[in-house]
Amino acid sequence: MAAFDINKLDDAIHGRLRLGIMAYLMDAEAADFNELKAVLEATQGNLSVHLRKLEEAGYVEIVKSFQGRKPLTRAHITLAGRKAFANYLDALSNLVSKR
Amino acid sequence: MAAFDINKLDDAIHGRLRLGIMAYLMDAEAADFNELKAVLEATQGNLSVHLRKLEEAGYVEIVKSFQGRKPLTRAHITLAGRKAFANYLDALSNLVSKR
Repeated sequence: MAAFDINKLDDAIHGRLRLGIMAYLMDAEAADFNELKAVLEATQGNLSVHLRKLEEAGYVEIVKSFQGRKPLTRAHITLAGRKAFANYLDALSNLVSKR
Repeated sequence: MAAFDINKLDDAIHGRLRLGIMAYLMDAEAADFNELKAVLEATQGNLSVHLRKLEEAGYVEIVKSFQGRKPLTRAHITLAGRKAFANYLDALSNLVSKR
């Protein structure tokens, strides 16, 4: 029964775009807003919303700076984010490994 | 870039409860409504809604019968459902295997 504990799937990560952001950052460590927008084929608004959710969960840190006069937004995965993603993958593989 | 094609994650399956239903049925092949309700700790209403979505997607077949006077609802995974779940797992592992 524990194998079907769907409540162990972290909602902050399970959303499709958030899952994409987290998976990308697990590998890349950090990424510019426009880079994420391109690789995930996301809209500006949608990406902003979901980055903010991940920031609120403490999984991502958003750093704003300027490149010349151009504002630059960069997302970094946090240690808590790395742990949460590892837990998410564990919960997921427990859930689906029964097949 | 293809590794981050989050659009390959089948929405009909990705929802948390639907993912639980599909994962359970991949193993069990078929299950009574009350069995699913118990293993997934779902409410009656929520389970009904998501079973219907899976039925509409063609991934699950719902068979209604009677056990004496008691109505019995049984969900079976379809061949299309099995294929879709396998595709979902492939898309998911492509997405997360970069870590």
